[in-house]
Amino acid sequence: MPRTRLILSVNAGSSSIKLSLYSASFGSTPVLLVKSSVSGLTSPPAKFSYSNNGNKGHNIEDRESGDVTDQGSALELFLKHLGQDDSLKGHGAGEIELAVHRIVHGGLFSEAVVLSKETIQEIEHLTDLAPLHNAAALALVKLATQRLPKVVNIAYFDTTFHTRSISPHVYTYPLDPGMAQKKMIRKYGFHGISYSFVLREAVEFLQKPAEETSLISLHLGSGASAAAIRNGKSIDTTMGLTPLEGLPGATRSGSIDPCLVFHYTSNASSLARSSTKELHISIAEDILNKQAGWYSMVGTTDFGKVVQGTHDGDEKMKLVFDLFVDRIVGYIGNYFVKLGGKVDALTFSGGIGERSEDLRRAVIDKVACLGFKLDDSSGNTDSNGAVTRLGPKVLLIKTNEEFEMAQECAQDKRFWE
Amino acid sequence: MPRTRLILSVNAGSSSIKLSLYSASFGSTPVLLVKSSVSGLTSPPAKFSYSNNGNKGHNIEDRESGDVTDQGSALELFLKHLGQDDSLKGHGAGEIELAVHRIVHGGLFSEAVVLSKETIQEIEHLTDLAPLHNAAALALVKLATQRLPKVVNIAYFDTTFHTRSISPHVYTYPLDPGMAQKKMIRKYGFHGISYSFVLREAVEFLQKPAEETSLISLHLGSGASAAAIRNGKSIDTTMGLTPLEGLPGATRSGSIDPCLVFHYTSNASSLARSSTKELHISIAEDILNKQAGWYSMVGTTDFGKVVQGTHDGDEKMKLVFDLFVDRIVGYIGNYFVKLGGKVDALTFSGGIGERSEDLRRAVIDKVACLGFKLDDSSGNTDSNGAVTRLGPKVLLIKTNEEFEMAQECAQDKRFWE
Repeated sequence: MPRTRLILSVNAGSSSIKLSLYSASFGSTPVLLVKSSVSGLTSPPAKFSYSNNGNKGHNIEDRESGDVTDQGSALELFLKHLGQDDSLKGHGAGEIELAVHRIVHGGLFSEAVVLSKETIQEIEHLTDLAPLHNAAALALVKLATQRLPKVVNIAYFDTTFHTRSISPHVYTYPLDPGMAQKKMIRKYGFHGISYSFVLREAVEFLQKPAEETSLISLHLGSGASAAAIRNGKSIDTTMGLTPLEGLPGATRSGSIDPCLVFHYTSNASSLARSSTKELHISIAEDILNKQAGWYSMVGTTDFGKVVQGTHDGDEKMKLVFDLFVDRIVGYIGNYFVKLGGKVDALTFSGGIGERSEDLRRAVIDKVACLGFKLDDSSGNTDSNGAVTRLGPKVLLIKTNEEFEMAQECAQDKRFWE
Repeated sequence: MPRTRLILSVNAGSSSIKLSLYSASFGSTPVLLVKSSVSGLTSPPAKFSYSNNGNKGHNIEDRESGDVTDQGSALELFLKHLGQDDSLKGHGAGEIELAVHRIVHGGLFSEAVVLSKETIQEIEHLTDLAPLHNAAALALVKLATQRLPKVVNIAYFDTTFHTRSISPHVYTYPLDPGMAQKKMIRKYGFHGISYSFVLREAVEFLQKPAEETSLISLHLGSGASAAAIRNGKSIDTTMGLTPLEGLPGATRSGSIDPCLVFHYTSNASSLARSSTKELHISIAEDILNKQAGWYSMVGTTDFGKVVQGTHDGDEKMKLVFDLFVDRIVGYIGNYFVKLGGKVDALTFSGGIGERSEDLRRAVIDKVACLGFKLDDSSGNTDSNGAVTRLGPKVLLIKTNEEFEMAQECAQDKRFWE
């Protein structure tokens, strides 16, 4: 019988952390044991959730946890609950052998890597490219290596799904090539772990080989992006050098005139207050990443409120809704052409993509000319695991980055020798 | 018999100026008398051309004119030759009654305006939004009002074709609305005089009313843009707050990650050397407008050389060619969706769009999935004036901004009372 190991999936955002514990043997599909999260780290008190399907007595939902103030204390709280969960005998923190971490910016890493002093240094170097995005995950990697010294820590990158297949004429910006090389300036693309999950699920649902499956995939959350996947490989995506490019988000501008920020503020390249000794963040980066998007337009980061406001006839909310739909459908047209019109499915994922039927309907209405439509009856859907069929070529796929990392880890021989 | 007037069309770029003299009566189609240009103002010696179909004895082609160093002396040279052209008796500089000027950034001006002290001040205020683009034209406006004091000077804007019809959810950037209003930050769009000409010619060629004609229109020159025209009105275009956004150009980056420039240079918002007391140009604006595009990648602003290099197997040239095609076809897909798939024609204009068959072919090959194609035989084309039919829904339209301004002026009752 193949040996079973415990895999801890760590997915740290700037204000939250998701932790899931899986059991897996090499080549198997990981089995979820515990799913946990801490949210609201930047708007205290933080809220803790813990769910063990095998032992519901320990389950906790959104409990306010005032003493949790950062990713480190969030990890501690999770490990404490793991230790107290009797049903996990032999499956506690001490038994975890592999910890898989989502890292947003992986530069040109073409695959997952074991986190060592050297690879951590390499990733720290990349943090210059994405100061707002890599810092939380890296802090947690360091804590995990200290707190769980026997665990092998592995980095999964949001970039590799794209960087290993996007062509030079797509990833190159029209700038001085010498400077671009020196400063590592090119399109990387993000949300790759999610796109990898979506592709895997779509392939299973459509019963086609990945090598013959082409998707226009939408990952619509507080951070939103789209990708064109041809024969199982990313050929273009909306995010670029950083996650700022492309679609707008809760607090991000998305693509705008590259000169705009110099008209918005006269000290665009000065250091923002949120900068630290290690992290240099310009005022422009701070404005465009944290003070833009629908938050800047209507004062909420919750797209659900935008949808509700649109329903209720609020013109400002409707402007945000229509603007987001406009930018999304533009990229669908763009990627339809990039795929030569051969698209097996348009997929919706991410918090907004999965929850907002209004948004999906508005988007699909506008791309009817490309042959996408919803089934007439909303009840007329097949559902299989994470996938729900919404129409002939339209799928809703509940993405799961924690599972995707555990799954890739379970299939990767390098980590089982 | 209606009274005939002379109209001088003035089209000033940063390194060149095109001057055309027309004769027209109210409501008529202007008749070209003289066509002239001065090029190379920023790479002396400047070259002067003058062509009068009625009196070829005076014609000049690309004569080096060392004493012409700016737009003002170029205008003087033109007026001097006009005075010496015997065939223009009664049609010389002293008889010019209307001068129409192309102004790149017209802010929210919704139509052409007579240039007065007040309107010139308003346009000067807009120069903050487009320091690199309005300055030359404004300098020339001032000179023309001094040099030709009896002439009524009229400004035609590259923005009005777009700003009078593009919807708020398209022109709004996802930023703080108060700041956007205060700083006049929104999408304006440019090349509008050219798009207006293209629409007029397409409508005539297709023999459909403008109100029923929808186009995806490509203006591909050193500065390149695309526009979606629905029922005769612009509904979206690639350029934005400034002409930088959207497609790359000879020296422009086009759309890039809005944070990119802060990784490219640490003093992005410092003043560039090309700044003057009146014109504040940041280093970032200078880099992205003047030191990017294919010039930065392969050292030439001449796209013809890029096409030739691609033919000759030069990989760097091919990268530029493929990159440009990639960005163009993406916008065609985008605008196809915005037009709901109802497109009467895809039109090619601008220096590159009109001259490079290779580029047109590469673009159309990639958008075949949207139903665009070239006719099999390249000889199988109808040609009517400025329009050449390249395929069932593909038109080549030789744009003429000087004519368009004169034509609009001839139809505008305000200027004939």
